[in-house]
Amino acid sequence: MSDNCIFCKIVAGEIPARKIFEDSDLIAFHDIHPAAPVHFMIVPKEHIASLADAHARHEALLGRMLLLAPILAKDQGLNDGFRTIINTGKGGGQEVMHLHIHIIGGGNLRAL
Amino acid sequence: MSDNCIFCKIVAGEIPARKIFEDSDLIAFHDIHPAAPVHFMIVPKEHIASLADAHARHEALLGRMLLLAPILAKDQGLNDGFRTIINTGKGGGQEVMHLHIHIIGGGNLRAL
Repeated sequence: MSDNCIFCKIVAGEIPARKIFEDSDLIAFHDIHPAAPVHFMIVPKEHIASLADAHARHEALLGRMLLLAPILAKDQGLNDGFRTIINTGKGGGQEVMHLHIHIIGGGNLRAL
Repeated sequence: MSDNCIFCKIVAGEIPARKIFEDSDLIAFHDIHPAAPVHFMIVPKEHIASLADAHARHEALLGRMLLLAPILAKDQGLNDGFRTIINTGKGGGQEVMHLHIHIIGGGNLRAL
């Protein structure tokens, strides 16, 4: 856990979140500022600051995060598809420095 | 390999692409219609139609795709960060039905 990291505080239960999934390694919850009708995030419990800070030992964890995305998207009613986004670093628009995958859908997504 | 899949044809060398990386499992090349100053894709050589068609046996492959993203982004000069996007299904804006990760950066990315 990293001090003053909002996602670490959600993992620790110190800040509430609308959780949709949790296991020993991952947690998923709705974004408080949704960019689409459905917008949730999949977050590793381990504090990894960004995708650029992930190491080879995180390979399986990262793979699991991606495999979980379509399962949770379907749970949330996104039967027609969804978009998965990871922002890395300031130039990538990353706002919380704890690795997270956004999953959005349910509306007309902008072209890439 | 899937017939009439443009990415399978790039993997097979039947269609040219501006490749930036290749190993036994993955290939990366520039998008022919870039959405940002830098825009490339990481693609598994195996034909997996979408993220929703990936299985548990693809966990390590998916993890490797994500671990490769920051390495190639840096190679392409994206030192300040980048955005990683996977579109899944029609509702997610997927245009080529062969799993691929877009990596974009180098300009002012829109808010999510």
